[in-house]
Amino acid sequence: MTLSSVDFEFMAHAFRLAERGLYTTMPNPRVGCVLVKDGQVIAEGWHVRAGEAHAEVNALTAARDSAVHDGARGATAYVSLEPCSHTGKTGPCSQALIDAGIARLVYGMEDPNPLVSGNGIAMVRAAGIQVDGPVLEEDARVLNPGFVRRMERKLPYVRCKMAMSIDGRTAMASGESKWITGPKARADVQRLRARSCAIISGVDSILQDNASLTVRVDELGLPNAEEAAAKQPLRVILDSQLRTPRTALMFKQFTPILLVHNGKVEAEQLQGWPDFVELIALPGKDGRIDLNALLRELARRHCNEVLVEAGATLSGSFLRRGLLDEIIMYMAPKLLGNNALPLFGLPLDTMSAALSLKIKDIRAVGRDWRITAVPDTEY
Amino acid sequence: MTLSSVDFEFMAHAFRLAERGLYTTMPNPRVGCVLVKDGQVIAEGWHVRAGEAHAEVNALTAARDSAVHDGARGATAYVSLEPCSHTGKTGPCSQALIDAGIARLVYGMEDPNPLVSGNGIAMVRAAGIQVDGPVLEEDARVLNPGFVRRMERKLPYVRCKMAMSIDGRTAMASGESKWITGPKARADVQRLRARSCAIISGVDSILQDNASLTVRVDELGLPNAEEAAAKQPLRVILDSQLRTPRTALMFKQFTPILLVHNGKVEAEQLQGWPDFVELIALPGKDGRIDLNALLRELARRHCNEVLVEAGATLSGSFLRRGLLDEIIMYMAPKLLGNNALPLFGLPLDTMSAALSLKIKDIRAVGRDWRITAVPDTEY
Repeated sequence: MTLSSVDFEFMAHAFRLAERGLYTTMPNPRVGCVLVKDGQVIAEGWHVRAGEAHAEVNALTAARDSAVHDGARGATAYVSLEPCSHTGKTGPCSQALIDAGIARLVYGMEDPNPLVSGNGIAMVRAAGIQVDGPVLEEDARVLNPGFVRRMERKLPYVRCKMAMSIDGRTAMASGESKWITGPKARADVQRLRARSCAIISGVDSILQDNASLTVRVDELGLPNAEEAAAKQPLRVILDSQLRTPRTALMFKQFTPILLVHNGKVEAEQLQGWPDFVELIALPGKDGRIDLNALLRELARRHCNEVLVEAGATLSGSFLRRGLLDEIIMYMAPKLLGNNALPLFGLPLDTMSAALSLKIKDIRAVGRDWRITAVPDTEY
Repeated sequence: MTLSSVDFEFMAHAFRLAERGLYTTMPNPRVGCVLVKDGQVIAEGWHVRAGEAHAEVNALTAARDSAVHDGARGATAYVSLEPCSHTGKTGPCSQALIDAGIARLVYGMEDPNPLVSGNGIAMVRAAGIQVDGPVLEEDARVLNPGFVRRMERKLPYVRCKMAMSIDGRTAMASGESKWITGPKARADVQRLRARSCAIISGVDSILQDNASLTVRVDELGLPNAEEAAAKQPLRVILDSQLRTPRTALMFKQFTPILLVHNGKVEAEQLQGWPDFVELIALPGKDGRIDLNALLRELARRHCNEVLVEAGATLSGSFLRRGLLDEIIMYMAPKLLGNNALPLFGLPLDTMSAALSLKIKDIRAVGRDWRITAVPDTEY
């Protein structure tokens, strides 16, 4: 593999292009492509939406449309993800790159699906084209934590979001919690929802907050807010005994809802729901819901990133079972006091049982602070 | 007032010199002085220790010792604090500057004691010398939060230090708390102790942790650790009923201890303590200790900065009474769970009662994070 510093620069450029699909490509991965000739970018492309052209095809089209550069012939193609080798809703990108006459392919990471990984690269290489990679692989994976997790492990990437005070409390004992954090933090949560394929909550949150759990266009704070909110995430309500009131506010929004119960409900409880509401039984132990089975089911439904927005009990259940990949805490600069509700339902007795996290990022979001952490198994 | 950008630079230099006395000047303020001639620093000085020369005198001596510059004659003197006008343990600095023939005086802030404030400046000005200031006054005050508070309000500057998990817990329900934070955070706490004139703790902390509450030379992580630890802070134990066991570890260190009780103790309880232990009664309501009276008493004893290192109950009492000027939280990247002990004893019922803080600083300290906050009354 022969790489120079410009290869890293152009790959980073491809990553920035991929990010433009952050809110729209699902269930497909975010992918960016840059075509470079004589050290100059001659065309760029990114995947916008499932069912539409892939990043490579968009870049090749842009190159063809440009009269100056003799198309992509002789160019180096930088793609954040190995080009596909199969004919899905669109033709294989590897073949398109070969047909366009590129001289070299540089890729960020291989296809994370172990069954097809390397096929696209092999196809391009078999056509006599130089292929280099992976390049900046860790950053390439960060673009698509959910897609990668789903391909590799048949699970979604599970993020848990909490809003808390400095003293680690999420609500008053009464349940009152509006608003712990400020408008910028809440807009940030809207963007977390918008990049997710599903939002998981519990019936208690519905009963307490009567939340809609939708992406609200006007709160996203994005230039392409309409587009980002177009594909609403699946709303998943864990409601073992189906206590969700049929008058809940979330039913006023006609986007899909998955009501998950424990299978031990009356037949009439299953009837008469709106047609955008699906009910499934995922019985676990002691009348509860099997959270592992839920995540496998969501992956089966092509969910890449899912967002847990729930209270201490349900969030704590995910945490204790080791099902959280990332925890995002919005920390408001206030104290709610020792009677207020805890962050996670996590009953521990000794310091040695404490759950270690690895803090990836702390930054100001308006007047609040966002802490991004991952469970630290090596601590 | 005629100030140029170099005036700010030299004043900032004087502040850096003042900081060299961070751990040693108490009960005096930290003060730095720079003498500048023709745009060049010809001498610098800072106050090292009470009873020894002031910053101005140290700088003038350095200038006199230098053969090159004809002493301080014609120089501009930058001092972080208005030079004194009184003869204390040393002669008045204002007179020393006049006698040395300086051409101009630039000061950071006036003497915070309202009774003498401006006298030093007036003395220098009366000698026909140009005087400019205050310059960077807010930063000048930050050098001496305790001295300033004591002069202005006859109270010390009260800092409260907590070590907590991300979920805002300080110890397990059993009281087990060693060690939430890592060695770098603990060294930082040692430095907080070293800059403080007194450390306030409660008998429960003594009973639980058997802490010595001293500054430990080898944990300071400072080049001048011996010097910084030389003057140990007064150890103040709030022990309304005098339950402190006479076998407590803190009595193995023979530096001053103030045992504060509520006045309703038996005569024999007051007897037989080591001679470095003083007992005083500061009765408050319901058999408790009057915390306001305590702080006034500490100011009377020339305490500038005091550090509250206590559990949730005592820390919460200071907080609820509005007696904390600053809260420093060392946040460890771990979760202690919802059974663990809370940060502050602060019983609140509604979101509107939440106590707002203003975060001044968040930074990594080893694997932990240090959050510095002040109560935000304008929130």
